[in-house]
Parts: sequence; structure tokens; C-alpha cells
Amino acid sequence: MVQRLCIIGVGLIGGSLARALKTAGAVGEVIGHGRDTAQLQLALELGVIDRAETDLAAALRGADVVVVAVPVGAMEGVFRAMAPHLGDDTIVTDVGSTKGSVVAAAERAFGAVPPRFVPGHPIAGTERSGVAASFAELYHKRRVILTPLPHTDAAAVATVRGLWQTAGAEVVEMEVQHHDEVLAATSHLPHVLAYTLVDTLARMEEHTEIFRFAAGGFRDFTRIASSDPRMWHDICLANRDAILKVLDRYSADLAAVRSAVEHGDGARLLHTFGRAKKARDEFKQ
Amino acid sequence: MVQRLCIIGVGLIGGSLARALKTAGAVGEVIGHGRDTAQLQLALELGVIDRAETDLAAALRGADVVVVAVPVGAMEGVFRAMAPHLGDDTIVTDVGSTKGSVVAAAERAFGAVPPRFVPGHPIAGTERSGVAASFAELYHKRRVILTPLPHTDAAAVATVRGLWQTAGAEVVEMEVQHHDEVLAATSHLPHVLAYTLVDTLARMEEHTEIFRFAAGGFRDFTRIASSDPRMWHDICLANRDAILKVLDRYSADLAAVRSAVEHGDGARLLHTFGRAKKARDEFKQ
Repeated sequence: MVQRLCIIGVGLIGGSLARALKTAGAVGEVIGHGRDTAQLQLALELGVIDRAETDLAAALRGADVVVVAVPVGAMEGVFRAMAPHLGDDTIVTDVGSTKGSVVAAAERAFGAVPPRFVPGHPIAGTERSGVAASFAELYHKRRVILTPLPHTDAAAVATVRGLWQTAGAEVVEMEVQHHDEVLAATSHLPHVLAYTLVDTLARMEEHTEIFRFAAGGFRDFTRIASSDPRMWHDICLANRDAILKVLDRYSADLAAVRSAVEHGDGARLLHTFGRAKKARDEFKQ
Repeated sequence: MVQRLCIIGVGLIGGSLARALKTAGAVGEVIGHGRDTAQLQLALELGVIDRAETDLAAALRGADVVVVAVPVGAMEGVFRAMAPHLGDDTIVTDVGSTKGSVVAAAERAFGAVPPRFVPGHPIAGTERSGVAASFAELYHKRRVILTPLPHTDAAAVATVRGLWQTAGAEVVEMEVQHHDEVLAATSHLPHVLAYTLVDTLARMEEHTEIFRFAAGGFRDFTRIASSDPRMWHDICLANRDAILKVLDRYSADLAAVRSAVEHGDGARLLHTFGRAKKARDEFKQ
């Protein structure tokens, strides 16, 4: 049981965690802090938080756990603002989609990464954003990755792990760099590809017709292109190296498929498509 | 009302059309023909067809309308086999995802494209295949594109149009080449991209972990990579030029996004992602 939980950035991710913990009776008071006072007011009205604080020092006062749920690009600024007001015993965690950049931001902002800072990443979300889209079941059966550093306090990790488990998630630990590589492959690259495809088609002369004759497969394939552009802009800048690495591998493979199409190399196409189908079908199960 | 309908290739597409027309009471007898006798027997047991014929001449005898629902790569062989047995009054249509290649195949097989041959393409389907996956509502509110040639018989077009409308579809007409360009953009390219991505990731060392930490966005994005590899191999070979054209445009755009990621050009990323989100959100409505 966490007596006082402070959520900085009460949107889809922070709001859903607050809802889940309240539903489970696992928190005393939930304090929300954010720049967007309308969102904060809405969070209060929806019962997602118990108290809204626009003053950061007041929001942090007496908090047992602070969850920083702001976009990756805003992390460092928030950490800097938090630094003077953070109690020694306060546990801090974040929900950023990239972990190397967040750890580096914490290092710069706090001088060194505090022992009670537990970098985290819930692998959950929808293409929607904002507290109005939040719901208590968002993390149910989803995975949350924690990337503690060698000197991170084990009790702090256990507390953060417990919060996510209470919200219904399966928690795993991973090294920072490994997290960033895996997520670049399964999440960051697909978003880049989907945004690029929709933009390519939208800029074609026949774009109205193109979208008119798109079917269900296209709808699914491009759903993630409805995600928040600012958030994905942040992620692309924050996880640059890992994204470039997997993107280059993908581009080389795409060039090989292109060449097979051009030269009518049916055997190669069948081999590649068949191997992909097999992998995708196994993933489904 | 069509007295005798012959479906050549009773899988998801042909089977669903047969089911829809039977449900609507719009056909007398449905004859199924195919190479796969197990599928044909199953179609009979499921009531999708009234009679199974493994002999093509027998299947075509007395048919008012023949629907050729075989993979694009098998069209020419089927047309050639049909040619000696086709009645002058028989209307023929197909369901191929590419139209230029099917028209060219008909031209080669029949000497000239018969006036009662109506090239068609229902924009519907799932990643599943086979007659067991067929259902009467597959075409409900879906679009069907017909690409009649200048000399195509207007009454034949009207009959084919009527069949699809009875199945619940909205029917539009388009020129052959234009169809192939639009579909290359909205359907063929996305399949190529999805197959390539899944294959790229499946061949990485950490592939087990990569798929383990994939979330809902990835699941949607790669769903089409579960489609029938043979069918998409056929389509890539059949619609080569249009696919290469839009693939090259996409690759150039992807290279620009890559460059923006590499050089930390946030403004460019935000612009591209924002424009894509806007287009995708409009498409949703």
C-alpha cells in the first residue's frame, strides 16, 4: 500500500495507472501534477486523482512514490524541476518508451541517477492519448519492463514492481540498452514505417481515391499512424542509434525484396513471405 | 436470378460469394470446380456449393455465369482450359487482385478478351484462406471494382454488378491500369512492407525476445503478414511495375525520415508524422 502517490503528467498512461491502483485499493491519496490545467481538472472530475497540484514542490511533498508520465522529450526538464524538492526516501519511476535517454536525462538533472529512481516502461497504450482515454484495465496482462541500474535500490525496485503487478501487469527486468534495441525493433520501427507509408500515400495525386479503396488490412497496418506525433518525434530522437540500426537492416531487406519483384524472382519472394508468415503465425499463439 | 453459377476455385473468396448469393436466393444451382478435391468436398458438405465437378467441361456446361476465383498466377492456365468449353452466352468474371495481368492472361488464353468477360476485384478478404473461412457477409459494405474494357458487353457488366450488389457490395468501375496503381499503393505495398518487417525481425538473434515484447500496435501492423504467401507472390509478380513505382516513392520517403532521425531533425519528423496522423484520422471517418 502506497500512502501518497504523485503522478506527473496525468494522460493515458499515468491516468490508467492511477485508476488501476485506486480500483485495487492499493493507494491512499493520488496527487496529479501537470502543465495542462484542463487535463488536470478533467482528471480530478473523472476521479482519476484526488488532488491536483500545479505547483511541483507541493505535488511532491510527502509523496512515497512519484510516477513521471510525461513524453520522453520532457523528462529532463521535469527531473531538473523535481531535484530540489525530492525527499531522500521518495521512490521515483518513469514510463518512457526509451530507457537510455531517460537514464541519461536523470544523470544530468540529478547529478547522478538516484538509487531510488527505477526506470520503467509499460508496454501498453492505444493510439489515443489524454486522461479521458485512460482506463483501469490498460495494463491487464501487459508487460512492464524495468531497467534498474547496478546501484538501484532493491526495495525501490520491489515497490515499483508491486505497483505494476497490482495494475495487472507482468513485470520483467532488462538492461537499459537491450530494452532500447528490442523496442526499436517491435515498436519504434513499425511506427516510423506506418507514418511514412501514410504520408507517402497522402502526398500522391490520387490520395482521395487511394484511401477510398483501402480495405481492412490497410486499416490495421496504418492504425499506429494515428498515434501522437509529438510523442513519436521524441522517441525517434531519444532512441536514435537503436532505431537507425534496425531501420538499416530493414531497408536492406526491403531492397532485396524490391530486387526480387523487379527480376521476377518468385522463389525468393515465396521464401521470404513464407518465412514471415510462419513467424507471424507463431507469434499469434 | 442466375440459374446456374459456376465457381472455379472454391476458397474464401469464391466460397463467400456463393454463400452470399445462396443466402439471398439469387442463384439456382451453384457448381464448384477446383483442383483440391478435399476443399471441394468440404464446400459441398458446408452447403457452399450444390454440386462438385472435378471435370472442367462438366462444370462449365450450361453455366450462365462463371466466377474464376483462383490465385492470380493460376488464371491463365484456367482460362486456357476453359476456352474450348465456354458457351458464347456465358458470362465470365474473375476476382483477381491485379487486373492488368488477368486481362493479359485472358487475351493470351482466349485469343482476344471475350466481350462477356468482366474483370473484377472484390476488395475484401481476411488473412485466412480456404472454404472453411468463407462466410456470406464477407462482401457486406465492401467495395468491388470492375474494370471492363471498351468492347466489354454492357449486359454482362450489369449482371456481374448485380451479383456483387446482391452480396452486399458497392460496385465501382475503373480503368485497368488505374486499378492496379491504386491497389499497389493501398494493398500490395503494405503487404510487402509487413512481410519484410516480420522477416527482418524473425532473422534477428533476439527474435524470441523481440516477439515476446511486441504489443498491440505491432500485432495490428503485422497482421497481414499472416496472409497466404503464394497469393502475394503471385500478386507481386503480376503487378510488378505499379508496385515498384510506389515502393520506390516510399523508399525515398523512408530515406528522408531516416536522415531526419540520424541528424536529429525534429521539425521534419514532427511535420511528417503530423501530416500522416491527419491523413490517417481523416481516413478513419
